[in-house]
Amino acid sequence: MKPLISSEEATNIISDSIEESKVEIISLDSACESPGRVLATDILADRDAPPFDRVMMDGICINTYNHILGSWRYKIIGTQAAGAEKMILPKGEFAIEVMTGAPMPTDANAVIPVEKIDTVDGYALPHEGLEVDDLQFVHLQGTDSKQGDIVLPKGSVLGAAELATAASVGADQLEVYKLPNIALITTGDEVIQPHEVPTDFQIRRSHPAAIKSLINSNNLGNITDKHLPDDEEIIEEALKTAIADYDMVILTGGISMGKFDFVAPLLEKLLGEAAFHGVAQKPGKPFAYWKPSDNTPPVFALPGNPVSVMATMHRYVIPGLKYSMKQHHKKSVSLADSFQWNNHLTGILPFKETNDGIIICPPRNSGDYLALVGCDGFVEVPPESKLCSGVTLAAF
Amino acid sequence: MKPLISSEEATNIISDSIEESKVEIISLDSACESPGRVLATDILADRDAPPFDRVMMDGICINTYNHILGSWRYKIIGTQAAGAEKMILPKGEFAIEVMTGAPMPTDANAVIPVEKIDTVDGYALPHEGLEVDDLQFVHLQGTDSKQGDIVLPKGSVLGAAELATAASVGADQLEVYKLPNIALITTGDEVIQPHEVPTDFQIRRSHPAAIKSLINSNNLGNITDKHLPDDEEIIEEALKTAIADYDMVILTGGISMGKFDFVAPLLEKLLGEAAFHGVAQKPGKPFAYWKPSDNTPPVFALPGNPVSVMATMHRYVIPGLKYSMKQHHKKSVSLADSFQWNNHLTGILPFKETNDGIIICPPRNSGDYLALVGCDGFVEVPPESKLCSGVTLAAF
Repeated sequence: MKPLISSEEATNIISDSIEESKVEIISLDSACESPGRVLATDILADRDAPPFDRVMMDGICINTYNHILGSWRYKIIGTQAAGAEKMILPKGEFAIEVMTGAPMPTDANAVIPVEKIDTVDGYALPHEGLEVDDLQFVHLQGTDSKQGDIVLPKGSVLGAAELATAASVGADQLEVYKLPNIALITTGDEVIQPHEVPTDFQIRRSHPAAIKSLINSNNLGNITDKHLPDDEEIIEEALKTAIADYDMVILTGGISMGKFDFVAPLLEKLLGEAAFHGVAQKPGKPFAYWKPSDNTPPVFALPGNPVSVMATMHRYVIPGLKYSMKQHHKKSVSLADSFQWNNHLTGILPFKETNDGIIICPPRNSGDYLALVGCDGFVEVPPESKLCSGVTLAAF
Repeated sequence: MKPLISSEEATNIISDSIEESKVEIISLDSACESPGRVLATDILADRDAPPFDRVMMDGICINTYNHILGSWRYKIIGTQAAGAEKMILPKGEFAIEVMTGAPMPTDANAVIPVEKIDTVDGYALPHEGLEVDDLQFVHLQGTDSKQGDIVLPKGSVLGAAELATAASVGADQLEVYKLPNIALITTGDEVIQPHEVPTDFQIRRSHPAAIKSLINSNNLGNITDKHLPDDEEIIEEALKTAIADYDMVILTGGISMGKFDFVAPLLEKLLGEAAFHGVAQKPGKPFAYWKPSDNTPPVFALPGNPVSVMATMHRYVIPGLKYSMKQHHKKSVSLADSFQWNNHLTGILPFKETNDGIIICPPRNSGDYLALVGCDGFVEVPPESKLCSGVTLAAF
């Protein structure tokens, strides 16, 4: 194993080497089916927003300058519906009935909500004492954005507001980063499929469930997985295929110093030396990474312990996938309680969110996924640190 | 319109009337494809976890009680691989090579990591001065959970750790709450499809993009949408179909007091009086709700303004869907900055997360989705309130 590097160095090596994802066009509909895709180009406003002076309340529109002192009623001369051509308000004490979303009739300058008037014999009578301001309840053309403005910049994550904004400017075909095809390879003779019944010394295969759900819930890739026995030849063949055919490779286990840990030597044989192998962190110390080259993808080799898998997925692989889509992962949380970390390695520790901040929940002795149920993410804790409540930590 | 009720009353009416969703069985694989489904039954451990005393490091195992003072080397008599039958450590100064995840050989009581020994001529020589504790690097059987323990309770949201835990206990078919089939109906003559080019007074249809992505990103329903012109007869027919065929109906617009607001009267005709119509909140005051009955689903009628749609979706519809899956929506956030709300109505206001807490971003004059781009949710702010930084608010 090479000398340990810091988690920060590991992050920099990954972010500097990960290449920008390819781009594809998807329909607005499919982006709404699976939200969270990342825009690979700016989206511009195709016209002013709002595109016309827009009525913001159901009621009547008037022109306050036409108001003759003493009189306080307006003859209703028609109805301006939404989606209809703009009407013209004549001079004098006239009103046009208006609907929310309708264009403001020409020469009108204020809307009075329907709740603030009485209607008698075709006349609108505003309630006594009502004050009417110039331009009230009128949403003026171009006050949100002008035609040609960038409404959604490249790198935007397409959630509800973003997709509705895209719809409103007519962007029904979206240029987004392609989801990388990811090969996930797990190894181990002791591992059986979840539906199988284990003998005493077998365990069920659970890494793919964790890794797939994590990548799918972030909508960051299409993942294909394969399980291999601890057989050097079979592993080598599978690695060759994965390296040739996929945009990214993730492996779990087989990278420590055990007798059957074939993965690291085989990857060195196929890809040359790792960019790093060993990070000064707990859990996840044996974590290794191979940079992409002209015809090989980035390879993440995660330690095989479940908590290490989750810690390194959150801390490195998910941010790495985000870098490839030009998103910079930056989240901080503050500690609800003081916390002491008595270890010379950086801690990558699970936390739970509370109303007062986060609580760090170092997994018990256990290396099992059960220890992580209900956790909301991982924080990075410096070696040998005493942290007071309120301290801010990077979260993943 | 009925008298306004408070947002709390509205919440209680919805949560008291929403029925528990039906249940279906899905495969573990499909739950990993679309994470976030909700468990409708407890999942139990099918055996102890770990199922055997498990080695936690690559190295050797010994029995510390066999150690003869002065001597400090162990003859390696074999290798205990993961997935193989348990070996037996003979009495005397012997060691068995062990791999992470392997069963601890019988009569061994401690693991020494490979980094802490030298191997010479078939003997393991621990580094000088090394202290070896009883049971070190051994994960004892049943210390995480016992056979029959509930590892995932009903109501668990199935994310990465939960699905990996399900896999590890053999739960590869999962009983989850069925996703309700939701009909979304939008209305309005002024509205065209996103790919169409609007005339001056038309706007593109954007509510479905927002509502679908919000429901899909929470994995809370299957949504089908339809747009209707402002035609009373057509709307009535569509409402009848939606009420008959779907588990939930969401409508946008047409529930204010405008001349073409057919939705509320038609729903009253078909379903009787609304449970409420009008909530003392801004935005979203005209929000209406019809309780489910024996043969009709719950109906949410949202005001048609984009910011109102998003506020009422976050504040009522998403929590309502969660109630139906026995999840109680409770999230709080704390204010990074002081905030003043000069309105006699409760504010349902968008916020952005920062490292120091959240910042409330009341939308400008605009009612457009663009005003909500980059926001992380909504908070509820009491009427006429002056809030200091650090104050905790309910978040949706």
